[in-house]
Amino acid sequence: MKNYSIAKSRRIRSTPYTSRIEKQGVTAYTVYNHMLLPAAFGSIEESCEHLKKNVQIWDVAAERQVQISGPDSGKLVQLMTCRDLSKSKIGRCYYCPLIDDNGNLVNDPVILKLAEDKWWISIADSDVIFFAKGLAAGNQFNVKIFEPEVDIIAIQGPKSFDLMEKVFGKTIKELKFFGFDYFDYKGVEHLIARSGWSKQGGFEVYVENTESGLDLYDYFFQIGQEFNVKPGCPNLIERIESGLLSYGNDFDNNDNPFECGFDKYVNLDTDAVFLGKEKLKKIESEGVKRKLMGVHIETNYISLTGSLDIMSDDGKIMGNLRSACYSPYFKKVIGIAMINEPFCKASETGKLEIEGKIFALKVCDLPFI
Amino acid sequence: MKNYSIAKSRRIRSTPYTSRIEKQGVTAYTVYNHMLLPAAFGSIEESCEHLKKNVQIWDVAAERQVQISGPDSGKLVQLMTCRDLSKSKIGRCYYCPLIDDNGNLVNDPVILKLAEDKWWISIADSDVIFFAKGLAAGNQFNVKIFEPEVDIIAIQGPKSFDLMEKVFGKTIKELKFFGFDYFDYKGVEHLIARSGWSKQGGFEVYVENTESGLDLYDYFFQIGQEFNVKPGCPNLIERIESGLLSYGNDFDNNDNPFECGFDKYVNLDTDAVFLGKEKLKKIESEGVKRKLMGVHIETNYISLTGSLDIMSDDGKIMGNLRSACYSPYFKKVIGIAMINEPFCKASETGKLEIEGKIFALKVCDLPFI
Repeated sequence: MKNYSIAKSRRIRSTPYTSRIEKQGVTAYTVYNHMLLPAAFGSIEESCEHLKKNVQIWDVAAERQVQISGPDSGKLVQLMTCRDLSKSKIGRCYYCPLIDDNGNLVNDPVILKLAEDKWWISIADSDVIFFAKGLAAGNQFNVKIFEPEVDIIAIQGPKSFDLMEKVFGKTIKELKFFGFDYFDYKGVEHLIARSGWSKQGGFEVYVENTESGLDLYDYFFQIGQEFNVKPGCPNLIERIESGLLSYGNDFDNNDNPFECGFDKYVNLDTDAVFLGKEKLKKIESEGVKRKLMGVHIETNYISLTGSLDIMSDDGKIMGNLRSACYSPYFKKVIGIAMINEPFCKASETGKLEIEGKIFALKVCDLPFI
Repeated sequence: MKNYSIAKSRRIRSTPYTSRIEKQGVTAYTVYNHMLLPAAFGSIEESCEHLKKNVQIWDVAAERQVQISGPDSGKLVQLMTCRDLSKSKIGRCYYCPLIDDNGNLVNDPVILKLAEDKWWISIADSDVIFFAKGLAAGNQFNVKIFEPEVDIIAIQGPKSFDLMEKVFGKTIKELKFFGFDYFDYKGVEHLIARSGWSKQGGFEVYVENTESGLDLYDYFFQIGQEFNVKPGCPNLIERIESGLLSYGNDFDNNDNPFECGFDKYVNLDTDAVFLGKEKLKKIESEGVKRKLMGVHIETNYISLTGSLDIMSDDGKIMGNLRSACYSPYFKKVIGIAMINEPFCKASETGKLEIEGKIFALKVCDLPFI
C-alpha cells in the first residue's frame, strides 16, 4: 500500500503538541474535528504491545469540546442525547449517543457535567457545535455555545496510574472510572478525568492553560523513564480488540443506536425529552434488521480504506466490514462489521474479497477480548 | 518540511475516483467533509501553470451536498443564509454565506435551486447537515434533509470549454456563469453547472450515476489529449492569486461576513428571515475592526500549517496570516490575512517571523490578480 502525504493548512489545525510529536517520531496523521490527530509512531503493532504493558502520552487535542452554558443548557444537552441525564452529577463523565430527528446517530461524545448550567461535550469526529447551535436557535434556548481552547493530553496504559501518582500525588488514584476532578501542577489547576480511548486504563488531562500543559507534557517524559513512557496515539489494533467504536468508521448518521449496541444508553421509558424519541420507540418495538458485530478473517494483512461487502457462503450480502486490522493477539485479521439479519449471530460464516482474493470469515460478539 | 502520511480509514472516505487518481499520480491529500480531497499531483507550481493554460479534471467529490426538500425547504435554506433568496431561480447557483445566531460564519456554500421545494447546498468543510437538522427540528419545519450520493467532477481551465463541447455538444457553451442544466452522456442525464473552485473557467458535473460518472471521467482523458488534459485538484497558488476564500483556512466560525468582504451577500434591508440578522445589523452599524486582506511577503518559500502573527513596524500585532504560498506570477510569497484596524488598508507595511527569520510584508487588496 503506497503512502500519501497529508497536505497541511490552517483548516487542518495543528495542536499545541504537534511540534513535539514531530520531534518524537510521529509518522502518520489522520484528521479529526478539522485537526491533526496522530495515527502512528512507526509500527502500530509495536505501539500496541507497548501500550498494553507500559504507559503512553497521547496528543488527543482533536477530541474537541463543545461548551454549553446558561439557564437552558441542561435542557439542550438532554435534547441531543437519548441517555437520561436527569440524575447526572457534577464531576462525572457520561458516554452519550447523540441522536437526530430520525433516530440516527450524530456523534457519541463523552459529556462532562461541570456545573448545573455548564457542560462540555467531548466529541467524536462531527461538528456537534452546529447541531447544538441549530437546536438552540430553533428552540430559542437561552444558552451560550462555543468551542473553548481545551487540548486533551491522554495518559494511557497500565503504568499510567503510577506515573500520574508521581506527578499529582496519591489522590489521583482514588478517581473513579469516568469521574473527574481538579489537580494541581506547579500552581495550575487541571481538570483530569479517569478516561481515555483505550481499555488499558488511564487519564485525560483537559488542558486549558496551554503553557502549563506543554510543561506537563515534557515533564511526563522527564520523569517517566522508570515506567518506560513513550509517545503514542489511539491505537487501531487495541481499540478494535477492545471493541471501542469509532464514529465515522463503525457507524455514522445512517445508523441508529440499537444497531450499534448502545441499548443501555437509550432510555425511552423516562421523562427525558430528546430528539428522535418516538422514532427510537418504533425502532425498538419493530426490532433492528442489522447489528454491529465482530468478525475474524482468515488472513494476516488488511488495509481498509472504506466499507467492504461481506458475502454469505451462498452468495448473499451479509453486511459490510467497516474497520479492520491484523491482531497479533489473535494472529489474524479482526474487524467490526454491520451484519444484516439473519446473519448477525456469533459463529455465522461468510467470505470477503480483498484485492481479488477470497478470505473466509466468522462472525463473533463484541468486544473481542 | 518533512512529509507525513495520511492514515486512511472509512471515516476519511474515499471517492469513486480515488483509485483512478492514485494511478494518475496523486501525491498528497487533504481531508474535506470527512472525505479525501487530492491536494497535489507532484509540483503545485507546475500544476498551476498547466491549469492556467489548459484543462484539468478534478476529483472534488469532497464538495458534498446537503439536500433539503419538502414544503418548508425554502424557509429553512433562507433561515441559514444572509443572502436574500426570495428572487432565486430554478437552474441557478448562489454563493451564500451561512450564518449562526451570533452573526458568525458557518460555511460558504454554493446553493443550487433544483425546484421550488428542493435545494442542494454544495458545502465547504463543515457539517452543515447537522446545522440544518438542528434548525429544522427546533423550528418543527416539514423538510427532509440528507446527504445524497453526489460526487462532483470539476473540469477547469481555459480549454475546458472546448473539451466539454466535444463531449456534450455546443449548447454547453451557452450555459451562463453559475447557471446549471442537464446534459446527456451516453443516455445518462448529468446536472452540470458552469462553476468551479478556480478563476480559470470551467464546469462541475454533479454525478449521481456513479457508473456513468466513472465512464465520463475516463472519457475526458481518452479524448482530451488535443487540449493537453491532465488530472488536477484545487490549486493553492491559483486560488490565493484569485482571492478565492477557503472556510477553515481564511475564515471560520469566529469571523463575520463583513470581516471577510462578503458585504454584497449580506442583504439586511430585505424581508428575508435569517439567523443573526439583528446581530449583523449591529455589526454593520458599528463597523468592523478587522478585515481579510492580501499580503505580499518578501520571501520565496513558505509552508503555512496554521495562523501566524503579523507585526507592525513598531511591534504591534497587525493581524494574522491564514493562507500563503509562493506565487511564480509575483515571484514572492503571497497570502491572505485577517488584518486589524487601523492597519487594514493597501500598502501598510509590517513583518512576519518564519522559523526564526524576519520578513517584510505589505498589505494589499483582494483579489491579487
